[in-house]
Amino acid sequence: MGLFSIKPVYAHCDLPCGVYDPAQARIEALSVFAIQTKMKDFTGDDRVRAIMLKEERAELVKHHLTVLWADYFKPEHLEKYPDLHDKFWKALKQASECKHHAEPEEGQKLLDMIDEIATIFAATKKQ
Amino acid sequence: MGLFSIKPVYAHCDLPCGVYDPAQARIEALSVFAIQTKMKDFTGDDRVRAIMLKEERAELVKHHLTVLWADYFKPEHLEKYPDLHDKFWKALKQASECKHHAEPEEGQKLLDMIDEIATIFAATKKQ
Amino acid sequence: MGLFSIKPVYAHCDLPCGVYDPAQARIEALSVFAIQTKMKDFTGDDRVRAIMLKEERAELVKHHLTVLWADYFKPEHLEKYPDLHDKFWKALKQASECKHHAEPEEGQKLLDMIDEIATIFAATKKQ
Amino acid sequence: MGLFSIKPVYAHCDLPCGVYDPAQARIEALSVFAIQTKMKDFTGDDRVRAIMLKEERAELVKHHLTVLWADYFKPEHLEKYPDLHDKFWKALKQASECKHHAEPEEGQKLLDMIDEIATIFAATKKQ
Amino acid sequence: MGLFSIKPVYAHCDLPCGVYDPAQARIEALSVFAIQTKMKDFTGDDRVRAIMLKEERAELVKHHLTVLWADYFKPEHLEKYPDLHDKFWKALKQASECKHHAEPEEGQKLLDMIDEIATIFAATKKQ
Amino acid sequence: MGLFSIKPVYAHCDLPCGVYDPAQARIEALSVFAIQTKMKDFTGDDRVRAIMLKEERAELVKHHLTVLWADYFKPEHLEKYPDLHDKFWKALKQASECKHHAEPEEGQKLLDMIDEIATIFAATKKQ
Repeated sequence: MGLFSIKPVYAHCDLPCGVYDPAQARIEALSVFAIQTKMKDFTGDDRVRAIMLKEERAELVKHHLTVLWADYFKPEHLEKYPDLHDKFWKALKQASECKHHAEPEEGQKLLDMIDEIATIFAATKKQ
Repeated sequence: MGLFSIKPVYAHCDLPCGVYDPAQARIEALSVFAIQTKMKDFTGDDRVRAIMLKEERAELVKHHLTVLWADYFKPEHLEKYPDLHDKFWKALKQASECKHHAEPEEGQKLLDMIDEIATIFAATKKQ
Repeated sequence: MGLFSIKPVYAHCDLPCGVYDPAQARIEALSVFAIQTKMKDFTGDDRVRAIMLKEERAELVKHHLTVLWADYFKPEHLEKYPDLHDKFWKALKQASECKHHAEPEEGQKLLDMIDEIATIFAATKKQ
Repeated sequence: MGLFSIKPVYAHCDLPCGVYDPAQARIEALSVFAIQTKMKDFTGDDRVRAIMLKEERAELVKHHLTVLWADYFKPEHLEKYPDLHDKFWKALKQASECKHHAEPEEGQKLLDMIDEIATIFAATKKQ
Repeated sequence: MGLFSIKPVYAHCDLPCGVYDPAQARIEALSVFAIQTKMKDFTGDDRVRAIMLKEERAELVKHHLTVLWADYFKPEHLEKYPDLHDKFWKALKQASECKHHAEPEEGQKLLDMIDEIATIFAATKKQ
Repeated sequence: MGLFSIKPVYAHCDLPCGVYDPAQARIEALSVFAIQTKMKDFTGDDRVRAIMLKEERAELVKHHLTVLWADYFKPEHLEKYPDLHDKFWKALKQASECKHHAEPEEGQKLLDMIDEIATIFAATKKQ
């Protein structure tokens, strides 16, 4: 008998809490973007720290997006949003791009992709 | 020469990003509360997992609150909100209480304390 | 200029190493399965530890699968294996099922799904 | 019923163990200081590693200090040491300073602040 | 050119700091022991938490012991203390025993083994 | 009553699963080696990331090797392979060398040491 055997609606959720929020990925992506906007001024030790922290924040974006994708979204959502998998896949790859690049344009792209996902998330919540 | 030596306003911020948001602590606290609301129905393996996940979420609440307290807030904020330290201290202790207790009342108390902090945070942002 | 700007083949890889292996997810899934095969005999403290460790191993399966999916696989692979996204998504959800359930059948399902992914991985490596 | 409902003295302690020791923060701070004393000789790859490791050690200092502050100290201690909150807050900010700076003076300041806290800790233990 | 190429004495040290202290492993082992001394009184949720926290503390003991063994001790120490490897190996296995067992005797054994290692450590420091 | 009190064969195993595989350490060591083979071409931000990721991978090698050494191998194996402790100790130190050095020769040495351990592991499995 599994954790949600009497609560099928949560059957694929890792937490018993059912609490999900794209804001978690977005806040970390904002950090990535903010770091990138400052990096053009950074050299030496400062730049090393910025690269390290940007890497860490981008990794957290990937983590939070994966939780949303794998734990929150269900087959019925996929039927309604057939390109959902691809949107998440490309957002994760964009987060990796942000690890490789210091240009704010990369962080902005990531934010836009997360906003698209957040719009779908909000729509599924209304149902 | 430190990372923010030319940006004194961020002088005590761990990230060069300056991005902070009480939502991070609040989302985890919502998980704690949601787990507690379900726990009265959980026994056996389900309950073990709920205790583990509640512990994990409460720990994340403590982490996010500490970042806000130690990295975001500055001496000028303390002058304006002299009980800020105590509010954070009690919220951290309440997060620990949520590890020890299965009653949703404990999670609700934690959410209320985070909301008080979020109100102060919002006020300092306006300045 | 990103880390692989002169090595486009690695353009979306998080590590500069290009080393990926489904064995990482498979070994953790084997742990999950092995724990489940023993759980019917476990009660009390033993069972609590088994649940905790199974949770931890299943989480590692999810991590390793996500790295493969988001960092290794590229658009050209998707064209050849259009259901790749879905295979990963379902494998991640099955890893969550393994957190919720103590039956070895759940771990076996996860192993089978990883083996399917490993077969595709091997085929893409040959190209 | 919480973990310590029959042991009120531990009521706000996250661990059931009641074991706390400022030495944990101090040892990590010593690492930070030792790294800083060597950094003037480091360039290139060596310096990058020193910055990374200093960051990591300083983060551990912050973690151990927060555990002491939020889990060990109780209201009765605050009454006796009204500036305890501020001492911890400034020590956490100094740990962040040590992430930003390569000068041993910063690490020494952190060690001094931890020693002040350790003195208070020792006094509360005697009671 | 490695980080310590001009400082051969630290040639095998992971941190540039050269700061090591068996106290780190001992403090975590004290937590394990303290949890075990309380466990006979714990049932239900309390016991689940105690098992989880004991597991976590025992894992930290293993981590700190491994750092001492692999990073601090050098070939010259092995010559003088030929059973050093075995002492560490058995201490790590005892830490695992403490994960499996709730009896304080197991934690006490672990503490005794760490104290033996600490005595050797102190002797090597004197040289 | 410990987790394996009725299953003495697993008495020193941290996981109830009994699943161990040197492949885990080997895959991470391959990453270290692959990063080192590319590092001669890396400068600036790229090199910083390579150093960071190499550090991380080498740390994982150390973790996986320690698990094998402390959790899998038993006294009877030591009798048959008296230099087993030393092989692991030197492999851990070589993993640290790989953190300090950018030359692929260091990563190759680490791979060779892991292969030696894997050969012994395979032999013990056959028994």
